[in-house]
Amino acid sequence: MSEIYEVIHRRRDVRGEFTGEPIAEEVLERILAAAHAAPSVGLTQPWDFILVRDDDTREAFRRHVYQQRREFADTLRGERADLFERIKVEGILESSLAVVVTYDPARGAPAVLGRHAIADAGLYSVCLAIQNLWLAATAEEYGVGWVSFYNEDYLAALLGIPAGIRPVAWLCLGPVSHLETAPDLERHGWRDRRPLAAAVHNERWGEQPAGAPADALPRAGH
Amino acid sequence: MSEIYEVIHRRRDVRGEFTGEPIAEEVLERILAAAHAAPSVGLTQPWDFILVRDDDTREAFRRHVYQQRREFADTLRGERADLFERIKVEGILESSLAVVVTYDPARGAPAVLGRHAIADAGLYSVCLAIQNLWLAATAEEYGVGWVSFYNEDYLAALLGIPAGIRPVAWLCLGPVSHLETAPDLERHGWRDRRPLAAAVHNERWGEQPAGAPADALPRAGH
Repeated sequence: MSEIYEVIHRRRDVRGEFTGEPIAEEVLERILAAAHAAPSVGLTQPWDFILVRDDDTREAFRRHVYQQRREFADTLRGERADLFERIKVEGILESSLAVVVTYDPARGAPAVLGRHAIADAGLYSVCLAIQNLWLAATAEEYGVGWVSFYNEDYLAALLGIPAGIRPVAWLCLGPVSHLETAPDLERHGWRDRRPLAAAVHNERWGEQPAGAPADALPRAGH
Repeated sequence: MSEIYEVIHRRRDVRGEFTGEPIAEEVLERILAAAHAAPSVGLTQPWDFILVRDDDTREAFRRHVYQQRREFADTLRGERADLFERIKVEGILESSLAVVVTYDPARGAPAVLGRHAIADAGLYSVCLAIQNLWLAATAEEYGVGWVSFYNEDYLAALLGIPAGIRPVAWLCLGPVSHLETAPDLERHGWRDRRPLAAAVHNERWGEQPAGAPADALPRAGH
């Protein structure tokens, strides 16, 4: 029981610590099988995994990410702009490979059990698979970095993803020199973590749990 | 390393196996702290957790879920309709409590680092927290059942969730008699799981990994 908590709290979103060493095929299969074992609405398993190692593809994606980064930077002013300048947002070329995760809303459709009232439920399933992948990789002493500075249409075109199938994540994956003990954005002073107690409500929104003052619940992992 | 895979593959979406026994406070805190340790776009931690034990609230929600279930059933015909009749979709009253997970898009806004190009990235973060919760609960020998037969506006009103904050999941949580070895929907013949190999592509959509014929990759957990 302790190992899973250790992995959950040790996991980081990696940008700068990838070594680029190759991943053994059997380890990659274990990690992908973990992702594929996630729960999914109506047992649709609406995810796919595109493994990207090709340098030209990665270089093209990296250029696109830097355009997107500049667009975001242009919305910032003063101290926030300076802070953002120093934050690395991707490890696309340094990681061993990318796992691009997609969502196919047509899988199992039209009568997807449990998606009747909530159209996004299939998208939620894909994210559960991503977290399984992330934890499995962390347990294997690898790092994962979710890059989200991109336009979905660009990535779909780059990888030949058919219309109707949505890219959900570009995950950099591979061996790392180490995992930082605090998230990059906290280390760089971009944003602090919120205490867990602030996120817990009792029976209704805004009600604090009985017998649990705001500082009684543990802080999040470190 | 083996324990995390064991938990990932043993995890089930529970409906019928809840015992209703109480959850020790320190175990609940470990599980919520695991959820709260998930990665989040721009370190926004946009989730909240509403703990619902009240019988009247749960009974009201259950009635609503049954209306939604009937609406879905009305879309089915013949064998599918008969199959669905036999499938239990929730353990709302039998579980020990519910954890309702919400998404606040305003947290950390307007300049959320990494949400510039992908509006749904915050919603994705909430789902990563849910999978952490699910795995932690499974490691604690508890069950989790995600109920998705509901209208979001109904649930928001029931729990006093403010406008702009979106309910993402009603999770039934608690001790279970056992976990089934196969998903309920597979056991009932609703849908089979897809082989992992069918979900893995090489470099571009539709390309099979080199050296990995369709049956070389392992099946999903059982």
